[in-house]
Amino acid sequence: MKIVVLDGYTENPGDISWAPFEKLGELVVYDYTAPSEIFGRLEGVSVCLTNKTCFPKEVLEKLPDLKYIGCLSTGFNVVDVEYCREHGITVTNIPEYATFATAQMTIALLLEIANKAGHHSDLVHEGVWTRGRDFCFWDGPLTELYGKTLGLFGFGKIASRVSRIASALGMKVLACRRSEITEEMRKADPQVTFTDEETLWKESDVISFH
Amino acid sequence: MKIVVLDGYTENPGDISWAPFEKLGELVVYDYTAPSEIFGRLEGVSVCLTNKTCFPKEVLEKLPDLKYIGCLSTGFNVVDVEYCREHGITVTNIPEYATFATAQMTIALLLEIANKAGHHSDLVHEGVWTRGRDFCFWDGPLTELYGKTLGLFGFGKIASRVSRIASALGMKVLACRRSEITEEMRKADPQVTFTDEETLWKESDVISFH
Repeated sequence: MKIVVLDGYTENPGDISWAPFEKLGELVVYDYTAPSEIFGRLEGVSVCLTNKTCFPKEVLEKLPDLKYIGCLSTGFNVVDVEYCREHGITVTNIPEYATFATAQMTIALLLEIANKAGHHSDLVHEGVWTRGRDFCFWDGPLTELYGKTLGLFGFGKIASRVSRIASALGMKVLACRRSEITEEMRKADPQVTFTDEETLWKESDVISFH
Repeated sequence: MKIVVLDGYTENPGDISWAPFEKLGELVVYDYTAPSEIFGRLEGVSVCLTNKTCFPKEVLEKLPDLKYIGCLSTGFNVVDVEYCREHGITVTNIPEYATFATAQMTIALLLEIANKAGHHSDLVHEGVWTRGRDFCFWDGPLTELYGKTLGLFGFGKIASRVSRIASALGMKVLACRRSEITEEMRKADPQVTFTDEETLWKESDVISFH
């Protein structure tokens, strides 16, 4: 069985291994695939993996041997799933990955605004603190997050993780959600006050979209 | 009663109010005080506040009216407390302040190393992502903290707070401490594994000094 990865670069620029896929069949990995290159690369192929290479109906119609499209992503809007359902092509996505890494990045962005650690590090390396008069050193006001309110717009696994980090930082946490808020969610994250959208806009000092 | 603040600038560069002190007496605030200026400024004064202005024995001997030195800091090594004890001068410090702000800064420094949010923000503003080929954008490897081990060298209120944030980020937390590790501490921070210094050096991916 030939397995074709159409745009492997963003998934694996060289720091991880494709070996688990190699055990399943003959693996061919392309870094990128232009729309015009799809047909040549998937001729007679039944199993392919994509990240951002698109499979609209017009493309799928010309690939009669295709049986499986694995989306190396959470979103699967690059595939016409309606067409796939009708024609027996299995489509999978990765509903959860990098929860901690994404929550970490969210907090990193917030702390960049609040503390500007990189900027201060640059100034220290330039000798500004050494030349300064004061024991303390800062270039402009810093923002203490303790007591401030974080509003989470959307609340899934990543936002849940963000809420826990923010709470440990001393922030109050509000969240709103289109889907149902279950008792399990309330129990799992007692630090979160679930609210409506309007209250979230009004009462939050920081808003994070999830 | 005259109250003299000798080096108020680092405590209050202008964004907070000295009003509570003004209620207690006639307040005089100097931004900085050079060693040679101390005697003129404290002549006949019984109450003073200092941040980094030093009170060694040689200085204290020439200030017979002084009854109180308030250190606007946690450390009080700027004052010869032995001399003060012998001569009835009360010395106070601020044993706890900015616990959350300091823990926040600790995590901000760690996330600066791990995520380099400011650097990436600069590149995005320069259009590097817009010109890039990939949906994803990063300039060099990022470090996921999940599963990594943070070693806290010293464990007081700030380290305790850091341990909670790090744990929420998915890190394992080790800590060592010169003073006793009480059952209360273990109960308050069950996410922390208390260990000896050698284990901390060996097993930590990141070490933070407290």
